[in-house]
Amino acid sequence: MDDPGSPQPEGLSCPLPIARYPRVLLAHGGGGGLMQQLIQEVFLPSFRNSALEARADSAVVDFDADKLAFTTDSYVVQPLFFPGGDIGSLAVNGTVNDLAMCGARPLYLSVGLILEEGLPMETLWRVVQSMAAAASQADVALVTGDTKVVDRGKGDGLFVNTAGVGQVVASQPVEPASVRPGDAIVLSGDIGRHGIAIMAEREGLAFETTIHSDCAPLASLVLALLEAGCQVHCLRDLTRGGLAAALVEIADTVRRRLHIEETKIPVHPQVQAACEILGFDPLYVANEGRCVAFVAAEHVERALSVMRGNPLGEGAAVIGHVHDEEDPLVTMTSRIGATRIVDLPSGEQLPRIC
Amino acid sequence: MDDPGSPQPEGLSCPLPIARYPRVLLAHGGGGGLMQQLIQEVFLPSFRNSALEARADSAVVDFDADKLAFTTDSYVVQPLFFPGGDIGSLAVNGTVNDLAMCGARPLYLSVGLILEEGLPMETLWRVVQSMAAAASQADVALVTGDTKVVDRGKGDGLFVNTAGVGQVVASQPVEPASVRPGDAIVLSGDIGRHGIAIMAEREGLAFETTIHSDCAPLASLVLALLEAGCQVHCLRDLTRGGLAAALVEIADTVRRRLHIEETKIPVHPQVQAACEILGFDPLYVANEGRCVAFVAAEHVERALSVMRGNPLGEGAAVIGHVHDEEDPLVTMTSRIGATRIVDLPSGEQLPRIC
Repeated sequence: MDDPGSPQPEGLSCPLPIARYPRVLLAHGGGGGLMQQLIQEVFLPSFRNSALEARADSAVVDFDADKLAFTTDSYVVQPLFFPGGDIGSLAVNGTVNDLAMCGARPLYLSVGLILEEGLPMETLWRVVQSMAAAASQADVALVTGDTKVVDRGKGDGLFVNTAGVGQVVASQPVEPASVRPGDAIVLSGDIGRHGIAIMAEREGLAFETTIHSDCAPLASLVLALLEAGCQVHCLRDLTRGGLAAALVEIADTVRRRLHIEETKIPVHPQVQAACEILGFDPLYVANEGRCVAFVAAEHVERALSVMRGNPLGEGAAVIGHVHDEEDPLVTMTSRIGATRIVDLPSGEQLPRIC
Repeated sequence: MDDPGSPQPEGLSCPLPIARYPRVLLAHGGGGGLMQQLIQEVFLPSFRNSALEARADSAVVDFDADKLAFTTDSYVVQPLFFPGGDIGSLAVNGTVNDLAMCGARPLYLSVGLILEEGLPMETLWRVVQSMAAAASQADVALVTGDTKVVDRGKGDGLFVNTAGVGQVVASQPVEPASVRPGDAIVLSGDIGRHGIAIMAEREGLAFETTIHSDCAPLASLVLALLEAGCQVHCLRDLTRGGLAAALVEIADTVRRRLHIEETKIPVHPQVQAACEILGFDPLYVANEGRCVAFVAAEHVERALSVMRGNPLGEGAAVIGHVHDEEDPLVTMTSRIGATRIVDLPSGEQLPRIC
């Protein structure tokens, strides 16, 4: 729980008042004075905005659209800090991405923290700072929140839930049901970085260079595609279960054959090497800053050009197409030219990566 | 975690397919086949609605207002089942209430589950059924969700997060800043039931009759007040820290003296007796279906009549007023006629009641 191994980011230290309580107590979640202190000294100054400062039971915010996107995710990643991110930035980016995948502009996030009694206050402080920075980068406001504390041994340091609200800007529904035969499957970049970064940190594996998580907010990439008028039928970010799970789920909903080509799928050589050592298939390894877009055939070139113009889509590539066949299958031409079925994994190679 | 003592509700049993896995496995949260099975066989049939069935990363729903209320709460209550409710109904009602307290009509809820490996599938099933029933009663839709599984010993059976979105219907802001000197403080009913119900269940205390939690959705009560044109300046549901914490927080935000009278505050005799035995002050004991309303003096009679016409406000009473003094204090005339300051507790008498 102490994660003494992770480096102390420069210039970060707890504000003096909370240093009186170097560790989280049950009372910090009890609705009394200590909880108010946590709100006043940690959350309000870090997430500062008028909705939060009204101190009401809910945030009341402006909303100007007739379609709203709403999503939630809990985060239980271990370790809490890893190369390229931490549970805080992951929680903000993950929810931002889920909103973006529906063609929405992410606007407001909620934060629910479940702390384990005894968590170092410094750890909480660092996670909160990371959430605030990620929210600022993704241009969303953390407008409402809640903190609970569970007894020592009944949690794992820190769990985070984020829910998010966005304004749907896509003129047509961006969802599996909109996918059409002939659509190109565009992948936004190389796969597998997040899962391998977590695995390396957790197991103390050293590679030649450190593999950083791809954890990032994809909203700007999606909004650029929509603003450029690209007909994007469906978007899905690649998280637990990797590229394979995302494609299998979509094929299953659309009831069409998706076919991809292994040689078209970018994988960083170091991620590939790590996968070979560990016996993982990069197709199933988690990502937190990559997505697939199902794009109308006539808009593929424009979509590729827009994506490659964004730092998060530099490695964008067409990896396959939606076929006419009405069998809900994902098939892949492998590196050696054979065709195989891409299955849903039963569970996951590596639990608690998000 | 097994709570073998809590009775099996009649007519409830897991669907056959999930009986293949009598306990939750890490793989149920892994993004693969077992997680899909859980979604298909437990969540979709229980929460059935079109937004959920679209199987997108976010729910896309209609929204028709320019002010949106947004809130979140995590629930870590122990035990999971108690007289008058369970963690599922609590999670739905708690979030519904937070939305209502801002003068909003609750519309959509998200559900984030953090399960501990080994949780009996039957327990999950019962909680999900309870959430579905509570959502139906409160007229909200559970439109999006997420499930994570943590290793055995790193959780406590089941934690629930709900976030909620509502449409603000109040014409004036319902928030602490709207409170005015002269406002009446109206309490919706007797206090302390929820905390005592949890305490009795947890500690195996037997009273003459079972004290049931007051856990309930307060939206209909609030909407009735607003529809009747009552000038409600602020609303607050009484949860952790009880009536005392709610009033102290509001006094602190408003920077005005609130004065209440102990003899006006309804407490069920059995709750009073339990508090005396346990050394609790009912003022600080948690509730999950009670609120205070700050009502303009000229609208008090109407507000009382509307509240008493609703089953959840039958015991409504004026317990005090907002005074002119600009000191952020809550004072109380006690049963014996003395005046004392009502303080914020430091933590809470009884942790994990929600």
